[in-house]
Amino acid sequence: MGKKAIQVATIILAGGQGTRLHPLTIHHSKPAIAYGGRYRLIDIPISNSINSDFRQIFVIAQYLSGELQHHISQTYHFDVFNPGSVDVLTPQMNEQGEQEWFKGTADAVRKNLPTILKSTADYFLILSGDQLYNINFQHMVAFAQSAKADLTIASIPILEKEAKRMGLLKIDSECRVTDFVEKPKERERLKTFQLKPSFYKKWKMESIKKNSYLGSMGIYVFKREALISLLSQDKGEDFGYHLISTAVKKRKTSAFIYSGYWEDIGTVASYYEANLILTRSLEGLNTYDETNPIYTRPTFLPGPKIKETKVTQSIICEGCIIEAKEITNSIIGLRSHIKRGTIVRDTVMMGNHFYMPPLHLGKFTDEDYWIGENCLIEKAIIDEHVQIGDRVKLINKKKHKNYDGEGIYVRDGIIIVISGTKLPDNFVF
Amino acid sequence: MGKKAIQVATIILAGGQGTRLHPLTIHHSKPAIAYGGRYRLIDIPISNSINSDFRQIFVIAQYLSGELQHHISQTYHFDVFNPGSVDVLTPQMNEQGEQEWFKGTADAVRKNLPTILKSTADYFLILSGDQLYNINFQHMVAFAQSAKADLTIASIPILEKEAKRMGLLKIDSECRVTDFVEKPKERERLKTFQLKPSFYKKWKMESIKKNSYLGSMGIYVFKREALISLLSQDKGEDFGYHLISTAVKKRKTSAFIYSGYWEDIGTVASYYEANLILTRSLEGLNTYDETNPIYTRPTFLPGPKIKETKVTQSIICEGCIIEAKEITNSIIGLRSHIKRGTIVRDTVMMGNHFYMPPLHLGKFTDEDYWIGENCLIEKAIIDEHVQIGDRVKLINKKKHKNYDGEGIYVRDGIIIVISGTKLPDNFVF
Amino acid sequence: MGKKAIQVATIILAGGQGTRLHPLTIHHSKPAIAYGGRYRLIDIPISNSINSDFRQIFVIAQYLSGELQHHISQTYHFDVFNPGSVDVLTPQMNEQGEQEWFKGTADAVRKNLPTILKSTADYFLILSGDQLYNINFQHMVAFAQSAKADLTIASIPILEKEAKRMGLLKIDSECRVTDFVEKPKERERLKTFQLKPSFYKKWKMESIKKNSYLGSMGIYVFKREALISLLSQDKGEDFGYHLISTAVKKRKTSAFIYSGYWEDIGTVASYYEANLILTRSLEGLNTYDETNPIYTRPTFLPGPKIKETKVTQSIICEGCIIEAKEITNSIIGLRSHIKRGTIVRDTVMMGNHFYMPPLHLGKFTDEDYWIGENCLIEKAIIDEHVQIGDRVKLINKKKHKNYDGEGIYVRDGIIIVISGTKLPDNFVF
Amino acid sequence: MGKKAIQVATIILAGGQGTRLHPLTIHHSKPAIAYGGRYRLIDIPISNSINSDFRQIFVIAQYLSGELQHHISQTYHFDVFNPGSVDVLTPQMNEQGEQEWFKGTADAVRKNLPTILKSTADYFLILSGDQLYNINFQHMVAFAQSAKADLTIASIPILEKEAKRMGLLKIDSECRVTDFVEKPKERERLKTFQLKPSFYKKWKMESIKKNSYLGSMGIYVFKREALISLLSQDKGEDFGYHLISTAVKKRKTSAFIYSGYWEDIGTVASYYEANLILTRSLEGLNTYDETNPIYTRPTFLPGPKIKETKVTQSIICEGCIIEAKEITNSIIGLRSHIKRGTIVRDTVMMGNHFYMPPLHLGKFTDEDYWIGENCLIEKAIIDEHVQIGDRVKLINKKKHKNYDGEGIYVRDGIIIVISGTKLPDNFVF
Repeated sequence: MGKKAIQVATIILAGGQGTRLHPLTIHHSKPAIAYGGRYRLIDIPISNSINSDFRQIFVIAQYLSGELQHHISQTYHFDVFNPGSVDVLTPQMNEQGEQEWFKGTADAVRKNLPTILKSTADYFLILSGDQLYNINFQHMVAFAQSAKADLTIASIPILEKEAKRMGLLKIDSECRVTDFVEKPKERERLKTFQLKPSFYKKWKMESIKKNSYLGSMGIYVFKREALISLLSQDKGEDFGYHLISTAVKKRKTSAFIYSGYWEDIGTVASYYEANLILTRSLEGLNTYDETNPIYTRPTFLPGPKIKETKVTQSIICEGCIIEAKEITNSIIGLRSHIKRGTIVRDTVMMGNHFYMPPLHLGKFTDEDYWIGENCLIEKAIIDEHVQIGDRVKLINKKKHKNYDGEGIYVRDGIIIVISGTKLPDNFVF
Repeated sequence: MGKKAIQVATIILAGGQGTRLHPLTIHHSKPAIAYGGRYRLIDIPISNSINSDFRQIFVIAQYLSGELQHHISQTYHFDVFNPGSVDVLTPQMNEQGEQEWFKGTADAVRKNLPTILKSTADYFLILSGDQLYNINFQHMVAFAQSAKADLTIASIPILEKEAKRMGLLKIDSECRVTDFVEKPKERERLKTFQLKPSFYKKWKMESIKKNSYLGSMGIYVFKREALISLLSQDKGEDFGYHLISTAVKKRKTSAFIYSGYWEDIGTVASYYEANLILTRSLEGLNTYDETNPIYTRPTFLPGPKIKETKVTQSIICEGCIIEAKEITNSIIGLRSHIKRGTIVRDTVMMGNHFYMPPLHLGKFTDEDYWIGENCLIEKAIIDEHVQIGDRVKLINKKKHKNYDGEGIYVRDGIIIVISGTKLPDNFVF
Repeated sequence: MGKKAIQVATIILAGGQGTRLHPLTIHHSKPAIAYGGRYRLIDIPISNSINSDFRQIFVIAQYLSGELQHHISQTYHFDVFNPGSVDVLTPQMNEQGEQEWFKGTADAVRKNLPTILKSTADYFLILSGDQLYNINFQHMVAFAQSAKADLTIASIPILEKEAKRMGLLKIDSECRVTDFVEKPKERERLKTFQLKPSFYKKWKMESIKKNSYLGSMGIYVFKREALISLLSQDKGEDFGYHLISTAVKKRKTSAFIYSGYWEDIGTVASYYEANLILTRSLEGLNTYDETNPIYTRPTFLPGPKIKETKVTQSIICEGCIIEAKEITNSIIGLRSHIKRGTIVRDTVMMGNHFYMPPLHLGKFTDEDYWIGENCLIEKAIIDEHVQIGDRVKLINKKKHKNYDGEGIYVRDGIIIVISGTKLPDNFVF
Repeated sequence: MGKKAIQVATIILAGGQGTRLHPLTIHHSKPAIAYGGRYRLIDIPISNSINSDFRQIFVIAQYLSGELQHHISQTYHFDVFNPGSVDVLTPQMNEQGEQEWFKGTADAVRKNLPTILKSTADYFLILSGDQLYNINFQHMVAFAQSAKADLTIASIPILEKEAKRMGLLKIDSECRVTDFVEKPKERERLKTFQLKPSFYKKWKMESIKKNSYLGSMGIYVFKREALISLLSQDKGEDFGYHLISTAVKKRKTSAFIYSGYWEDIGTVASYYEANLILTRSLEGLNTYDETNPIYTRPTFLPGPKIKETKVTQSIICEGCIIEAKEITNSIIGLRSHIKRGTIVRDTVMMGNHFYMPPLHLGKFTDEDYWIGENCLIEKAIIDEHVQIGDRVKLINKKKHKNYDGEGIYVRDGIIIVISGTKLPDNFVF
């Protein structure tokens, strides 16, 4: 059972198909998508949990779980001196020979309860597999303990336009949650959740817009007993739509107020923006804090070799060979090779998992993945393992807002080239 | 992709429910069952694969896969200098949103082919999750290469009574397989598979019984291309019943002849016997060869502390406290505590995963798992986490051959007490 | 620099030649001597430090440091998520090209200060490499912090006969140390250190003998600044004889009172007794607490296989083959092979590092290390890699108290057979 | 003893003070010097040995061995499935209580023989701690085996000017070494070593300059027995000056011919050049081959964030913040921060071990290590942990060839700023 009785275990919900992120999810589950040129989205909640010293972690997966499981098993190895585990829980045949899939977030936890309860944890921290933040969850659990809350919901002030797409909390002066609504549709009901002036004052948030709401971040701390009994009382499939409402009514539910960087990767546009924000100073996710690093699978690659390039506001990852003329406002992922004369602007290049197509898989007749000579790429997401010929222009010439093509898509005006695509010389889009 | 292109990847079939091993499989999948007092069955094929230097391993699981996945992720961590992986493949939702379970051994491999083919392996070694042996598979692959075989089947001479329950091979003088039958029912067809005298002579097996057959061990080496095309040509669900026959007809199929220790854990009786054989000198699985160890999850427990006990032909594992009067012909697993006056004979005690029930799970009101004072236990399998009171007698008084009770079962005359059972003082069975 | 600024770093003094432990130190430094059949002495302070969550550890070594460094580098690997290190510091050539050996405990720390101060620790915990205990040093550091002590000395009540061989503390009601003497020779000076009745009452130690003293355990917690300035103010070579006295006079020095198991391995007799105490229930070092394990280099060996043996109050470690007739009050170390008919009583067998002599080293012509048939071994320490023939009697026939022979020694009536010794058939001592 | 009897063990000579590399060796031993912006020199021979599957490695250290030992123990952890070790051997007190330093390369091996011979290796591969190459030593050992050589010396064709500074080999048509001379001074003797035309033809080296010699690379493969007996026959302290000559005379000595990249880091100029060659395409050490990576201590840092910079022929390592105006022909090491307006040309910046000075060590009053705004740095080596103010010019204004100053040195026209130096605003050199 490890070195000491585990106090807090973490459950990361990573099973959804992520349809709003299509086409990025054609070949990957959402939490397995590359981020920041070298991470995968799942690395962020796992790293935050480990950095909070919560080292017993369950990742519940379902859609394309294989790649996720492989990444995790290659990245998260704990020593014997301070035990930990990242267990990937997938649909299994149960003792009665039943084969059951997970129908929602609460259902997924319910079906894995026999395994999860082998943990001795007093509290369960529930996270999403697709959110970005740097949070020390020790503070949240300490708050949950001092508030004696059965359920603690992390929450953040948000503007009205976001309020309609989230769960909203109404709290009293002690931060106890008195009402909750998931994605409210009626304007009247919505209005009742608007934050009071006393809130801004108490939390020293006078600078934020006044017509704000308190949104649930989808991060929960449950007392062990409360999680068990809620999952059995309310047979609903989803936390947001079912269990949280029940908890607010029947159990002591408190709000943990947070106001730092927090991003939910819901759409292609939010994924794109959450990457590019990294290239600006001191914004977005902090990946430089070596006392709380973002972990990922280690490589043994040299720093990028840059030939003759004007680089502006960009991050270029290890193993790259950059001969390009210009790289502007872009993330250039691991092992990218960009040839001379090429211009890359406002683009997220995910990089490659390996330099050469493995022996038997090679769809490409040529030597390597690369971006050819004298290309122009603007406002694009280039997935892993793409090959782009010489003089290719990806500029969304027809100004599509949304478009589905052969390996090329547009979402919210952002061009997407998916894994395994090969664009010939002189191709223009 | 790791240090060098992988030549051979291993696929271990560990998904079956193992109904013939019931009731041992009530709480565990078959490959997760404890063995030898400190191992789990899955450790044997994985260790053999690693000791053959085949470090890319896929374990296909389905029934109660969670415990198996946890054991594997806590045991098999490879360094960065000689990469390896043990990936547990479970049913997942595919790119089309389909949810599909594995219907047989071949079907399980077929459904995981997209993941498995990410390996660059030229050959795939397919193993069972529930067999015991010490085999260096380098020799089998070398044979496959020199024979230029599309499929190589490991095979072993067996007696007629076993022949009916196995797949049988007919081979020519070059070891090419000319005919194959799975569990033949007609005596006439069976007889055609009887080994010729020339076989015994060639393989220097004159000492074995003459009316023997060549049985398939369920261990296959496929050429990459052959595996892919066979899985697509023959849509059958099972290797033994479907694909192997097709392969013998359509592709070059060879037999790799083996004659050492090999045990398939099919029944409670064979499980029981495969444990007790370890207590005898120089028989059964070799667990003493430190150049080819059987790996398992490491513990940091002292050697067994023995108070005043006559021990005969037994293995007693680390962390035990033995105050018993007599231990004869038994395996006493990790962390067992046997109190004074007690006699244990011909028994497999699986041991415990931890000394004390974890905080919240404790079904027992008392302090610890143990076998009480002045008990008599004969010919039994005691599963993990059982508590037995004082003066308990487990002697199969009514000489049941098979029996199903509350936590107690009999199979082939062997008493089985399953996990979580508590037998009160003075209990007699 | 790791995950968080290190608060406490541990320095383990492991450099001494341990002459009072001769002949056990002929082939090993004292901290590298086997203990409990499977550990080495150095594992105990390192494990205690790690279990106290002090994971930055410096081991200062000098005498036969190679074996110690190898054991440590094979045993203590920390993960990247909660960084730690066990650095072995040995004499080096310094920046001025000077080659300097360590002349005493304080001198050894002083000469390694440039390396040690690269740690960001606020406190340094100084331990010995040859003491046995289960202590959570978090409590000691917490006491040091609350007492605002520059130096905190762990101390234990001891009897008068031990008092002459130790450092003694005089404390006030706040546990501040008001006087200190190292190994006092004059009876009068000694008497002034006798504990007052109020001490026993305050610490609820009424049960211990009344004419007790407070002895220094040689375990110190220094404030960073205090260690640096004391090492520069007092140029003495030794903590006990020099620096501690100076600290008591010049800096705030407090005593941390301890009363559990603590053993200093000073002599062959204390080494022998500290091993055998493990075989008794609930005494000596606790090696069963899996939340605070004693770590050592992992093996992948099965539990001991016992053929037909009366075992009384003994611990038998993994990998043993025991065919002996009787094992009484003994520790039988890793990979021991004891043949039939043999009787082993009151003996510490250290076990073997490997079953067979490595190819090129083999001094033995025969197959293996073992204890032969029909031997009688009483009150002995058998070092690693010894071979004993048939019908050998080790019974100290001449009742030597001390004796030096060819591979055989006697100390305090205990027979010692050192590594590499081969005793022929029928040998009697 | 590990998984299989070790066939080849590697001994890396890393003890020298490296006086010709002064002032880079003021704070580091030569093998611990940073290289390529993220490695240390010792990583190259260790990685080559591991990539050759020789995983039992001894590093013999003496001068400032502490930093080297720490780097190695944090970087090279082998798994239990394919055992390995990197043991750092330093001067120790021996069994006779003698304290002996290593006086030369052969003496260092001789004094560590008792430890080294615990390996079961049949062959010992001896490497230098300060050479750069990508060599698969399996080929060299295979050659040694087929040639049945007692000693095999790796050798490379060199020009006359280098010949005087190296050991030279004369070989027969079977590559047996018939004569050897270390750093020949007499021209006549030198001339006799000139390579014959048949050599160029045989080895297909017609393209190289004709008046070449065969130089010893200081890489040796000894048969176990030959190493032992040579070290005892010839009591000389050095391989090059003593033992190799004796071996050539008395034992079968062969030359292994090599012609790829190989660089001995003898001087500041060769160190400088061996770094900058990495920035050019396809020259120098190959660090991109992921089947044979150069290992080093892993970091969890993002790719360099580049603000607005013209980058030409440079490598910029992870964790850097580059606001500079121009980076040309330079290596920018880990965690470097270069502020806006600054120009860096023809420079090796070693990078930093951590972003902020550790709490207690901080010599700098300001926040961080950095290169300030609007600086101009040309042809320099900037050691780790240097702080350079605004408008600093490092241009070797006075065109020193060699110079020793306060924290600033010049060697062969290359400026060197050593660790811990702080250059104030407007400083010009």
